[in-house]
Amino acid sequence: MCGVIGIVARSAVNQALYDGLTVLQHRGQDAAGIMTFDNGRLHLRKDNGLVRDVFSAADMLELRGNMGIGHCRYPTAGCSSSAEAQPFYVNSPYGISLAHNGNLTNAEAIKRDLYLEDLRHINTQSDSEILLNVLAHRLGGPGKLRASESDLFDAVATIHERCRGGYAAVAMINGYGILGFRDPHGIRPLCFGKRETDAGTEYMIASESVALDVLGYTLVRDVAPGEALFIDLDGNLHSRQCAEAPRLAPCIFEYVYLARPDSMLDDVSVYKSRLRMGRMLAGQINREWANHDIDVVIPIPDTSRTSALDLANELNINYREGFIKNRYIGRTFIMPGQAVRRKSVRQKLNAIDLEFRGKNVLLLDDSIVRGTTSEQIIEMARDAGARRVYFASAAPPVRYPNVYGIDMPAARELLAHNRSIDEIRQTIGADEMIYQSLDDLVAAVKEGNAGIQGFDCSCFDGRYVTGDITADYLLDLEAQRNDQARVGDSARGYPERAGGL
Amino acid sequence: MCGVIGIVARSAVNQALYDGLTVLQHRGQDAAGIMTFDNGRLHLRKDNGLVRDVFSAADMLELRGNMGIGHCRYPTAGCSSSAEAQPFYVNSPYGISLAHNGNLTNAEAIKRDLYLEDLRHINTQSDSEILLNVLAHRLGGPGKLRASESDLFDAVATIHERCRGGYAAVAMINGYGILGFRDPHGIRPLCFGKRETDAGTEYMIASESVALDVLGYTLVRDVAPGEALFIDLDGNLHSRQCAEAPRLAPCIFEYVYLARPDSMLDDVSVYKSRLRMGRMLAGQINREWANHDIDVVIPIPDTSRTSALDLANELNINYREGFIKNRYIGRTFIMPGQAVRRKSVRQKLNAIDLEFRGKNVLLLDDSIVRGTTSEQIIEMARDAGARRVYFASAAPPVRYPNVYGIDMPAARELLAHNRSIDEIRQTIGADEMIYQSLDDLVAAVKEGNAGIQGFDCSCFDGRYVTGDITADYLLDLEAQRNDQARVGDSARGYPERAGGL
Amino acid sequence: MCGVIGIVARSAVNQALYDGLTVLQHRGQDAAGIMTFDNGRLHLRKDNGLVRDVFSAADMLELRGNMGIGHCRYPTAGCSSSAEAQPFYVNSPYGISLAHNGNLTNAEAIKRDLYLEDLRHINTQSDSEILLNVLAHRLGGPGKLRASESDLFDAVATIHERCRGGYAAVAMINGYGILGFRDPHGIRPLCFGKRETDAGTEYMIASESVALDVLGYTLVRDVAPGEALFIDLDGNLHSRQCAEAPRLAPCIFEYVYLARPDSMLDDVSVYKSRLRMGRMLAGQINREWANHDIDVVIPIPDTSRTSALDLANELNINYREGFIKNRYIGRTFIMPGQAVRRKSVRQKLNAIDLEFRGKNVLLLDDSIVRGTTSEQIIEMARDAGARRVYFASAAPPVRYPNVYGIDMPAARELLAHNRSIDEIRQTIGADEMIYQSLDDLVAAVKEGNAGIQGFDCSCFDGRYVTGDITADYLLDLEAQRNDQARVGDSARGYPERAGGL
Amino acid sequence: MCGVIGIVARSAVNQALYDGLTVLQHRGQDAAGIMTFDNGRLHLRKDNGLVRDVFSAADMLELRGNMGIGHCRYPTAGCSSSAEAQPFYVNSPYGISLAHNGNLTNAEAIKRDLYLEDLRHINTQSDSEILLNVLAHRLGGPGKLRASESDLFDAVATIHERCRGGYAAVAMINGYGILGFRDPHGIRPLCFGKRETDAGTEYMIASESVALDVLGYTLVRDVAPGEALFIDLDGNLHSRQCAEAPRLAPCIFEYVYLARPDSMLDDVSVYKSRLRMGRMLAGQINREWANHDIDVVIPIPDTSRTSALDLANELNINYREGFIKNRYIGRTFIMPGQAVRRKSVRQKLNAIDLEFRGKNVLLLDDSIVRGTTSEQIIEMARDAGARRVYFASAAPPVRYPNVYGIDMPAARELLAHNRSIDEIRQTIGADEMIYQSLDDLVAAVKEGNAGIQGFDCSCFDGRYVTGDITADYLLDLEAQRNDQARVGDSARGYPERAGGL
Repeated sequence: MCGVIGIVARSAVNQALYDGLTVLQHRGQDAAGIMTFDNGRLHLRKDNGLVRDVFSAADMLELRGNMGIGHCRYPTAGCSSSAEAQPFYVNSPYGISLAHNGNLTNAEAIKRDLYLEDLRHINTQSDSEILLNVLAHRLGGPGKLRASESDLFDAVATIHERCRGGYAAVAMINGYGILGFRDPHGIRPLCFGKRETDAGTEYMIASESVALDVLGYTLVRDVAPGEALFIDLDGNLHSRQCAEAPRLAPCIFEYVYLARPDSMLDDVSVYKSRLRMGRMLAGQINREWANHDIDVVIPIPDTSRTSALDLANELNINYREGFIKNRYIGRTFIMPGQAVRRKSVRQKLNAIDLEFRGKNVLLLDDSIVRGTTSEQIIEMARDAGARRVYFASAAPPVRYPNVYGIDMPAARELLAHNRSIDEIRQTIGADEMIYQSLDDLVAAVKEGNAGIQGFDCSCFDGRYVTGDITADYLLDLEAQRNDQARVGDSARGYPERAGGL
Repeated sequence: MCGVIGIVARSAVNQALYDGLTVLQHRGQDAAGIMTFDNGRLHLRKDNGLVRDVFSAADMLELRGNMGIGHCRYPTAGCSSSAEAQPFYVNSPYGISLAHNGNLTNAEAIKRDLYLEDLRHINTQSDSEILLNVLAHRLGGPGKLRASESDLFDAVATIHERCRGGYAAVAMINGYGILGFRDPHGIRPLCFGKRETDAGTEYMIASESVALDVLGYTLVRDVAPGEALFIDLDGNLHSRQCAEAPRLAPCIFEYVYLARPDSMLDDVSVYKSRLRMGRMLAGQINREWANHDIDVVIPIPDTSRTSALDLANELNINYREGFIKNRYIGRTFIMPGQAVRRKSVRQKLNAIDLEFRGKNVLLLDDSIVRGTTSEQIIEMARDAGARRVYFASAAPPVRYPNVYGIDMPAARELLAHNRSIDEIRQTIGADEMIYQSLDDLVAAVKEGNAGIQGFDCSCFDGRYVTGDITADYLLDLEAQRNDQARVGDSARGYPERAGGL
Repeated sequence: MCGVIGIVARSAVNQALYDGLTVLQHRGQDAAGIMTFDNGRLHLRKDNGLVRDVFSAADMLELRGNMGIGHCRYPTAGCSSSAEAQPFYVNSPYGISLAHNGNLTNAEAIKRDLYLEDLRHINTQSDSEILLNVLAHRLGGPGKLRASESDLFDAVATIHERCRGGYAAVAMINGYGILGFRDPHGIRPLCFGKRETDAGTEYMIASESVALDVLGYTLVRDVAPGEALFIDLDGNLHSRQCAEAPRLAPCIFEYVYLARPDSMLDDVSVYKSRLRMGRMLAGQINREWANHDIDVVIPIPDTSRTSALDLANELNINYREGFIKNRYIGRTFIMPGQAVRRKSVRQKLNAIDLEFRGKNVLLLDDSIVRGTTSEQIIEMARDAGARRVYFASAAPPVRYPNVYGIDMPAARELLAHNRSIDEIRQTIGADEMIYQSLDDLVAAVKEGNAGIQGFDCSCFDGRYVTGDITADYLLDLEAQRNDQARVGDSARGYPERAGGL
Repeated sequence: MCGVIGIVARSAVNQALYDGLTVLQHRGQDAAGIMTFDNGRLHLRKDNGLVRDVFSAADMLELRGNMGIGHCRYPTAGCSSSAEAQPFYVNSPYGISLAHNGNLTNAEAIKRDLYLEDLRHINTQSDSEILLNVLAHRLGGPGKLRASESDLFDAVATIHERCRGGYAAVAMINGYGILGFRDPHGIRPLCFGKRETDAGTEYMIASESVALDVLGYTLVRDVAPGEALFIDLDGNLHSRQCAEAPRLAPCIFEYVYLARPDSMLDDVSVYKSRLRMGRMLAGQINREWANHDIDVVIPIPDTSRTSALDLANELNINYREGFIKNRYIGRTFIMPGQAVRRKSVRQKLNAIDLEFRGKNVLLLDDSIVRGTTSEQIIEMARDAGARRVYFASAAPPVRYPNVYGIDMPAARELLAHNRSIDEIRQTIGADEMIYQSLDDLVAAVKEGNAGIQGFDCSCFDGRYVTGDITADYLLDLEAQRNDQARVGDSARGYPERAGGL
């Protein structure tokens, strides 16, 4: 998962892009990049690392211009070198750069075609380089000295024809403007806003509305599935629906965990949807476990705090922040002659004993992926003196891999893969185990916008909205992720997930 | 304010000190240092920066040995260079290093005496270098080849005689062991714990108990005011009361804001004390403003969440996390030809509109220092649609400077300095203004340990427990902080305080 | 001026390219880069700095593969950012990278055409990006999945048609091989060599033969003017003359100063040519100043030592190294409130007094450009006690700008511009002034290879072999260099030239 | 071997110290440091690396003040960490820092005494820390608030009593001035100079006079063996002979190889002494090998060029620079799965074939230590086509270890150790082998200053002027250097010595 941003303004955009990327940093802490346009020339800075570490004052000085795009990248298996940081750039035609959030499911086939038919070499494992070259090849085809808006939208239509998967992207055309587009199912989010200044209207496109808020832009609306926007250097906004049969089916995991609570995604408040997830779960407990003996509801910080609060309110039970998150995470150094220590969840969370001692606690996480941290957390709760430990997930069991840009482990590594709820409960050592039902989850989100036709819920139900995911594809993915994840984990030491980023 | 740590273990301590410092990082993000002892030699690494940035793998390799001390430093006016990072070291006598949390109120006088009487040059503005030299001079006096435990404790007694102020320190004597001590009022916190291993007992001293928890040590108890502990290399613990008339009067601001909620300080759970602050404040509101029209209680994250929860519970009003904190803070770059932009609180907090729209909101912060962020936050609440905005502080008005190691601004910069509650309310633009009373605050903390004889509440009542603070001293301080803070602020761009570190 | 290198080997080339670049480092210390090919993918590392500073161990690990090209760049006015480091890369068609030494005199026109006709955006001020895009566009034209050797040579022919100026380049085609070519006048040098290994033949192309020597390759021959070589991944060498009327006219300044003495350029030993320059100059002195009273010949180190030795031998006068060069040059820091100090030649050279005291000394430099260092050196000689100071230049007066890739100052800044020999003598304060005649210089070089048809001597005689240099072109250049050189000088603080790099 | 420098000036000394260290950089490239005094406070920056890499602009800003000392360090076995960079500092008494060139032969004994008697812990392997503590302890003894000049000189006298070996040092006393002193044999060099400015006289002390020259100071004289100088902050110079029976016996290797040719050491021009070494060697050849068939004399650059020139002049044979030195040396990277490549001398030198082809060449090196590079160079000469290769050394056979601060390998690694001249010839593969005799070498140097009573020639004759070197000491040293050198070599990859630094 990644964050993208694009701004066409009336004054320098470097600081705004930088600030916007810090606001979107929760969508990707692995790499960051900014490309700006100024006076016929493009300026690029990208590298591995957090936004605050990638850009020096000298870099910012170089990033001149009133128009630019930015990106922050989530660590994806097989894609960790700084050469794969975004934006990507090609000089033919025009000089085009692109930054992208999502994943193409037919990347290998397009890559082959790009080489065989278009002679375009793709030098990385990044889908974004593919997307950029499909766009560039189509734009260069007619050989026009300057593409019209209509040419740009035709090129996006070609992308929709050639590419499968989930994608939300911003592309900057040298001397011309910024293009934003979203796949025909709108799987990954994209919205835009504007700001009036004395010098004229400024536009901003971003993965999440919170970036608009913080930079003082007013949200206009989400980019529609299949739609493309183009903002030219004069500040004119153009848009067109470029897909044949667009059908909004956003990734439901954005609401569960990925997005910031203060964002609006497809007209649904993430925050409110999480409150409803808590209430829905409370409803289920009241229905199915009416005589429960829960003394206190304790969220696993940070994401599940919102759901847990209304879960507790609805159950009329105390809500307590029994776990404190350590905000400063360090490295585990491998010293010669020492065994590799597993970085325990205890480095990241600490229990306040008195909230556990002698109580029946209901722990709530937003979702459960591998389950290894859940197991450790339950153990911590018991060590802290809990009498009984119940574990709830605000999302249904995660049973299938994600193919649209969320970096989840291979299916066999998923806790819920081929396990019944009771087996899950035993595996992580809980006294009771409660999962949200998929219907309730969908209802919790949809209540915010009845107009959403459906969701991509593939991690939960294995149904992939793009209709092209075969068993073979998933087997390949499994093989690939098993290999690469292992390398990545030991080498980079990314923190496992503990109830939020 | 700073964090200190010392470990005498049976295997390498570098990773443990590093992990401990990350857990104490909230006490100081400005600089970090570790010194270890191995085989007759001391190894030191210290620099400006976060723990995760200061120590490289190569540094860790050098930090050999089973005994060591560590420090993380808060930015203090006039004390920002890397040369002032801790621990400090002198080679005569023995080779001694020291790390310290606190502030000496008679530093200038001691510094002069050290030079005139002991010929010891103090090269920095750091009190820690003074403390170390007082210790070293006293230890070297008798000219013994090896100090006995009794000599060590006598030296701490000398420190108590010569030094005024608040201090909690760890000192490592080359080839011998680690000494921990606390000033006769116990103003700054210090505790210790132990861990049994196959190779024998290991001891750890730390500013807060949470560091013990995370590293798997069991809290034994707080170091008593005036007491000194010594743990020798064989793992034997020695202790003695070294002050003539010790009287526990810990800094109450630790409970209000400085310490992590999951710490126990002087046998009081910080977390529980904050819950009680919330309830006390609710009691006050119920008594004095019975017909209030508050719709919702919203904390300023992160510190005040705990108090706000029980404030809401007690008032029987909804508790909502209406502000989302941006966890990734970047820099504001100064570009040539641009005016310096003030880093707004909007970079750090974002409001969820729907929790504010049309409501009467009670915002709670743990305390209010300068008030500039409070003012901006109230404005954000109004922008988000709040009908009326009430502002509460879980602590009383901050009216006096701190002289025991908390880096507060000069008195004239304090919001509550020479202002009535109503003037404060007008200044920050609130519709109502509620402050905890000092009696209630003291009661909230003391309920956890009736044995505490008193507190240092000087920021609130101007009564300094060490009895040596004159009006002239405060005037000097004022002048000094005014000058230096200005330099520091613009040059280093430290984030202002927004309801938490 | 720059250095280029390309290797197609049977094992990893990273270390060899790195070593080769250090050997060519005298041709450019401003930036360095390497691109390798491995298993369908290209790996690039380039940045500002010396070779030893640009490449870390981690970079070298990434530079996998048995084929690659490298570059070191001389600071050129207007071209100092790291984005302008070489090699450059385009992904369409095929994936091609290029590194280049020289300068195109019709760069602006080609750049415009590339955009207008080929829609290719040139993002830097670097000619190399232009050269690469001319090559790429021509190769992509036919739309073949794989270019034949013939296509490659046709593309070089197109370069010769479109581009004017001096250029020697290496280009790597993804998955195919390395192409080397030289402009139709052979202005800039390029040669190649081979090495037999158990795994087969390996080829190397380089700016100077010394790089072949040091890496254990045997010089095969120079690349002919207008010729192109192609070495495919299987180690087959292909070559073709690609220019219509090639005519060898190498830059004579390479022999005077630029090249290493242990290189062979166009079959002439640079070292021997310099010995002959010394002898020629001696001949002139004997002819024109038979009754001279020179006591000792002292070279300005390092370049002129070779000429000075045979100058002295021929005159039968003592040769003495009276100046010692400081090998470690540091920076001049600008401290607040201090005036900018001019970095004096005294930081770089120190005189051994006893070689000067009471003597008539003949100082020899390889050439004189601005003359500011000559003036200081003469002053140093006098301070060291010289009775009379005579100054000789192994090259004729430098009176015209270079347009083929040597970064010389604007004409008005040249000491000899619009000055008679006697005016020059007065300006730098010498007692006598001796310049090599152009005929003698040409003879000194040509004696090594009678087959050379002519030389580019434009700095000396203002005759530009490419025939396209107009007065307007030179005026533009003048304006441009005046502006940019000034910025560059103060900002980057490049050492002035003191008798050698 | 190291370089030291100290300046008491009338304006900021940071740039001057920095420039001086670059001039002395040939004496040590392993680490560098500067400490300055300003307004009651000392400022220090030191680290591993070249001068140009150690000091940033920010560091220079911190190094305020008109008085300071500097140091550059040669890599010494067992002493490579940045913690061992100099100057060293102790704060008791007064605040004293010290930088030193040399080696104490009774370091272990003093270190023990310092701990047992003075309770002073020495934390490094550096003799400089010992020297500093001997000084500091003696100064602190009387307990005076301010040491008089007489106290300082008494303290140096104590150093001469307690310490054996070679040492030349500068020490800065906080708020007082700079002390310079040299051991009673004057083994290591030290001189001082002055400069008149409008604000008063400035003084500078340095290892070599060349640093004075470059900074515009006039050499006053060498510091006498056993003498101490003190320059106070007011610019007054004090001096005293502090040794009982001083006897000048400077290290003869300084003239052979260590010092810069443009330095005067103990009133002898290094340059001239080298010319004489060449002439002496010519005399020997003429006497002992009158019918030699040498065609050309070729120096191994850089050091031996001076000797070679007059050797050739005296033999009336051509002098040619047949080897070109590569000025830019890179690293050899260890790639996974590759064998460690030996860094060959071919990376550093390249032969110009035509100076060798068919000729009988006499190669001259300043001295031969291990002989491995000599062997490779002879091989290169043969590869370049030499008919016969004769090898000469301007110094006698190096047969014994150095104990006074030159980092030579263990005795068994010395080429000439237990080998006859003919065995040496065979080992390195020369056709003839010529060594300077020790008498001639001594005469060559002494001719410059008849007043020198003797020299330390211990590497050549095994006679150690300090009279305290026992067989056991040398055996210990051997064991120690064997162990440590091995680690150092592979880890740090220092270039072997190739006829110069």
